[in-house]
Amino acid sequence: MVMDISQFRVKVKETIEQYNLIQSGDLVVVGVSGGPDSLALLHVLKTLRPELSCELHVAHLDHSFRGKQAEEEARWVKELATHWGLPVTIAKKDVPALAREKGLSPQEAGHLARYEFLSGLLKQLGAQKIALGHQADDQAETVLMHLFTGSGLEGLRGIVPVHGPIIRPLLYVTREEIEEYCRAHALEPRRDPSNEKDIYLRNKIRNRLMPWLLENINPNLITTLNKTAQILWAEEEYLEYVTKKKAKEYLAHEGDYEKLSLRRWEEIPLALQRRLIRHAYSFRGAAQGLYFQHVEDIRELAQRGQVGKLLHLPGKIIVEKTYDFLLFYKEGAKKQQKTLGSYPLKIPGRTHIPETNQYIVAAIEREKPQNPGNTVVYLPWPGQPLTYVARARRPGDRFSPKGLAGSKKLKDYFIEKKIPRGERDQILLVASEKEVLWIPGRAVSNKLNSGESERYLVLQILDAKDMTVKIKRV
Amino acid sequence: MVMDISQFRVKVKETIEQYNLIQSGDLVVVGVSGGPDSLALLHVLKTLRPELSCELHVAHLDHSFRGKQAEEEARWVKELATHWGLPVTIAKKDVPALAREKGLSPQEAGHLARYEFLSGLLKQLGAQKIALGHQADDQAETVLMHLFTGSGLEGLRGIVPVHGPIIRPLLYVTREEIEEYCRAHALEPRRDPSNEKDIYLRNKIRNRLMPWLLENINPNLITTLNKTAQILWAEEEYLEYVTKKKAKEYLAHEGDYEKLSLRRWEEIPLALQRRLIRHAYSFRGAAQGLYFQHVEDIRELAQRGQVGKLLHLPGKIIVEKTYDFLLFYKEGAKKQQKTLGSYPLKIPGRTHIPETNQYIVAAIEREKPQNPGNTVVYLPWPGQPLTYVARARRPGDRFSPKGLAGSKKLKDYFIEKKIPRGERDQILLVASEKEVLWIPGRAVSNKLNSGESERYLVLQILDAKDMTVKIKRV
Repeated sequence: MVMDISQFRVKVKETIEQYNLIQSGDLVVVGVSGGPDSLALLHVLKTLRPELSCELHVAHLDHSFRGKQAEEEARWVKELATHWGLPVTIAKKDVPALAREKGLSPQEAGHLARYEFLSGLLKQLGAQKIALGHQADDQAETVLMHLFTGSGLEGLRGIVPVHGPIIRPLLYVTREEIEEYCRAHALEPRRDPSNEKDIYLRNKIRNRLMPWLLENINPNLITTLNKTAQILWAEEEYLEYVTKKKAKEYLAHEGDYEKLSLRRWEEIPLALQRRLIRHAYSFRGAAQGLYFQHVEDIRELAQRGQVGKLLHLPGKIIVEKTYDFLLFYKEGAKKQQKTLGSYPLKIPGRTHIPETNQYIVAAIEREKPQNPGNTVVYLPWPGQPLTYVARARRPGDRFSPKGLAGSKKLKDYFIEKKIPRGERDQILLVASEKEVLWIPGRAVSNKLNSGESERYLVLQILDAKDMTVKIKRV
Repeated sequence: MVMDISQFRVKVKETIEQYNLIQSGDLVVVGVSGGPDSLALLHVLKTLRPELSCELHVAHLDHSFRGKQAEEEARWVKELATHWGLPVTIAKKDVPALAREKGLSPQEAGHLARYEFLSGLLKQLGAQKIALGHQADDQAETVLMHLFTGSGLEGLRGIVPVHGPIIRPLLYVTREEIEEYCRAHALEPRRDPSNEKDIYLRNKIRNRLMPWLLENINPNLITTLNKTAQILWAEEEYLEYVTKKKAKEYLAHEGDYEKLSLRRWEEIPLALQRRLIRHAYSFRGAAQGLYFQHVEDIRELAQRGQVGKLLHLPGKIIVEKTYDFLLFYKEGAKKQQKTLGSYPLKIPGRTHIPETNQYIVAAIEREKPQNPGNTVVYLPWPGQPLTYVARARRPGDRFSPKGLAGSKKLKDYFIEKKIPRGERDQILLVASEKEVLWIPGRAVSNKLNSGESERYLVLQILDAKDMTVKIKRV
């Protein structure tokens, strides 16, 4: 293909402008392996530097994969940068050791090592951007890789031209154009022989599949796939924007749980149901390992699952259906919660509840508290000792919540309030010998917070951390 | 692969239930070519018929591609249906002639002929559904075909299990499972030899690419691609739902024009900008022929294009930038509009405006009209003949719109009201020798609709179709 070489520079500059990749005054760390892509990147950025009013810093990492040859490459990059009058940082990391240590593939470990090196350098230099040499052929390969290994839009959109500080100015030029640019400017890139081996999925696609597709299916496939990636990028961005807005309404984090509300669930469009589930699942990190069938199983649980039913997901995540929610939590999250003990209240005095690290403070006062409610309660002081206990629920517990004439089973009250079964044993109660009087922070019996007397028993629940501050107010 | 053959029936039934493909009492036309897919489809539907409470009707089209052999196939399908006790309709169409006539490829013509045959039969029988034998391998091939030839989500989502009356109960079983099902039930399908040739893109993908991908990249690729298609289907549905809602606000059809509003355009997410443009472009049919680069060019026109600038698109569609809109219209749409003539008003009387097929009705009345405005106007009758003319604008026209002291150039008035240049010559005016008095339906001069007198000249504009109804009200 005959190409006007000046077009290369124009194209790269257009990409930089369109996505606002570099702002005036930026210091740009350029990742240079020494291969054609990164070499062309460095060269074209060097020629654009005056127009862009930016500064460049060359960065090269020796992965310790290829011994002497890699050291020679590092030296070569250093010399080139110096020759071009650019500051340069060379580093060496034992990537094979990192791979063993973290149980990663060599490619994954290399990726991690590069990311850490470059972002560390960014910080150290106070730089604004990290420029990488990914180009249109990489993009096309990435789209195919993701399609072949299973992916939704977030994979099919491929590589993006800007992500945080990372920028990819070459994303819309092809490998062929880069080779031609290198030839035209007498740049002599180093070749990484591992690129020629078919052992990796990407190399199989690059070396065997892509040539066949270009010859037999579509000679413009690189461009075609890049346009598709651009379209899908925008659609993915929009869908994630909508999902995040929806997540504010539907997702909540509570202790060890991620709660996904099922309010009017069936009215949520299918695509957003799936995305909300992925968001809920990824509350401790990426949604990796969550496959399509898992998402569908979770949807089934949401729609038709019985309350209390559990699903076990990859990463030891459990999903539990409750009345109004799906709860997502790590296996063992519940077991780690200590079983509530039983603590007779010191009246007057402070009773420590070790499992929740709270105190129940009991005082006998001449005045009623100003704002009795669920955290501060009172009753007329009968003048004789009271045997109240702070504890978890017990079978047969009864409760007379404010506003209700008579009492009901505590269990029914919990069901009515749609408190998940798994949470009920963790709820602290204050009970007399006869009945539950107070569910601190949640509800109060109609026996409390009323009546006149000369003295009042005032009970307050306080987190340990608030004790020193608030104790005096009781 | 070893498969429990009873699973096949379960899977198909699940698909039917999940997507509600068949309702009790439905009459289902089953398209049967005689190949393995449609034969298995007919067989499994026959065994499911009692549970689904539906009736079946076999339909077969002879495409006239393969002479004797095709006739023999048609006879075979007829015999099979009869043997199974099912009603059957066989038809023959000269698809090669249709292809020549319509300038279609043989495959496109075959598709069109089948569609016409089956939907005609649906109507004729008063049937509810048309069942087709597409399966998971077809789906995987379709996704790849669309990806390779360039497509957004609407292509990548592939084939859908239900679209209008068309249903595809086999969409989530593989070709391998179908072959096994046929063997297990001693079904002996006919083979279409054209499927084995690589001349068509689909066959290349089926016969050459797919086996390589299954062996070298992912042995579960069929399933993987089918899951992706399912995910993308839901995302496409949601995005189109949002786009259609947005289109109600942003798109309007006016005469030969499709108008896309540019109000707060830059705030519309990129994905929806692109989809709105596709909707606007497809006002006369599908958005076929509109490529990614066209959409981007139109976005550029919207954002930075000068007012009055035109873009020429495939299908002889022109996009014109105006102050507040992008106008989409067929080339020549303007020229087809007749130039407005000049028509002295009959006072009193009716004056026909042939270009717009309207009448201006002039009456001398004792009473002012009750609701004067832009379609009914009046002025005190001076008692002497008035030489008013209905016509298009002319250079130098002046106008004194209500509320403005003094007059202004009509041209400035049009600019101010952001009336597209291309529309200005089509606007009917009523003018005296001195100035424009009335722009029927739009504006009225401060000389009209005021003043007291014994008699009033009342002018009204009416569409021809409203004449018989409304004339008496003047």
